[in-house]
Amino acid sequence: MEMQGLIAKTEYLWFNTKNRQEFIRITDDVANFVAGAKIAEGFVLVSAMHITAGVYINDNESGLIYDIQEWLEKLAPANINYRHHQTGEDNGDAHLKRLLINHQVTVPITNGKLDLGPWEQIFYAEFDGQRKKRVILKALGLAR
Amino acid sequence: MEMQGLIAKTEYLWFNTKNRQEFIRITDDVANFVAGAKIAEGFVLVSAMHITAGVYINDNESGLIYDIQEWLEKLAPANINYRHHQTGEDNGDAHLKRLLINHQVTVPITNGKLDLGPWEQIFYAEFDGQRKKRVILKALGLAR
Amino acid sequence: MEMQGLIAKTEYLWFNTKNRQEFIRITDDVANFVAGAKIAEGFVLVSAMHITAGVYINDNESGLIYDIQEWLEKLAPANINYRHHQTGEDNGDAHLKRLLINHQVTVPITNGKLDLGPWEQIFYAEFDGQRKKRVILKALGLAR
Repeated sequence: MEMQGLIAKTEYLWFNTKNRQEFIRITDDVANFVAGAKIAEGFVLVSAMHITAGVYINDNESGLIYDIQEWLEKLAPANINYRHHQTGEDNGDAHLKRLLINHQVTVPITNGKLDLGPWEQIFYAEFDGQRKKRVILKALGLAR
Repeated sequence: MEMQGLIAKTEYLWFNTKNRQEFIRITDDVANFVAGAKIAEGFVLVSAMHITAGVYINDNESGLIYDIQEWLEKLAPANINYRHHQTGEDNGDAHLKRLLINHQVTVPITNGKLDLGPWEQIFYAEFDGQRKKRVILKALGLAR
Repeated sequence: MEMQGLIAKTEYLWFNTKNRQEFIRITDDVANFVAGAKIAEGFVLVSAMHITAGVYINDNESGLIYDIQEWLEKLAPANINYRHHQTGEDNGDAHLKRLLINHQVTVPITNGKLDLGPWEQIFYAEFDGQRKKRVILKALGLAR
């Protein structure tokens, strides 16, 4: 949608991970979306639409990704005793992990591109996968 | 405020909870605000304006809400020994709980409505209530 | 950049802290930036561009700042055993602390000013300093 030089654009990324927990780098998907949106200056929101998945920005280094996963497991452990499981679910820890890592980031767009620091990479963090789930990308800003 | 098809609108939700800690679903309040804002495409920021309260998005399931509260208590426990208490306050844990759960979400607006996933519900998380506190709703986007 | 009454403005704050960990109040920097942006209604994003630093909003009270630092150290401790350290880095805990405190806030702009609650103060949280690092300020909204 464009009006008087202002643009809003939306896209959905779909995921269906092989493993229950998987972290996927999505910086290029977001960058391509922004390139197609023809926005010079503005914001893009990247937000997980399912409540057992998150989105965060940090380093694309496999050791660190391992550390983050260990850390989340320590602070929000898988456990059979969550009260949420009385509903028949078994993913209480996945809800808590999403809260801890957070479910969205807002990335600034400058001169038509993602304005990220040198090591900033956007990740989708799946905590209860093996089924179809979505991330919304929504950009708002001034046209190029 | 409207200018050339661009709209910004603001509203404040007030809370004065009966209990010190209370989680309140506010999805409908935010949806009604967005309906009145006449924005087709954009964002709405939902942000707790007091530093012992938060806003988060997760499931509206009473067992899970219990689990989240237990989890916050474990990771950011009430404790008489916080240095902040030397000021006469007794709510050190409430500040930490707000940091852990986070104090704001940005919700995308698509086709005039909140663009939330199937289970996403917006919650106000009060950690030091029994007095008047506010949440700001601010929407920005293209007019319908 | 201004188009039809819509303004986008960007600025970068630079930090080079004396200590490895340092928390710096930046509310006035953000307020001055917004005053210069001539935006009446909109948002300003405040986002740390380096992956071992964060941005958060809470009280400007020295006891509480001490409590927050103690708490982060407890939940994301310095430790020689992070796998990330196999790359030669020694800052695994700083990455986790950034994830815990979060790296960005969106502050609403109302009537040309930051629309913060009475005790809300914006902080830059450095976890691996003693070198040059940046925070981006990007505002988007309707002209005054």
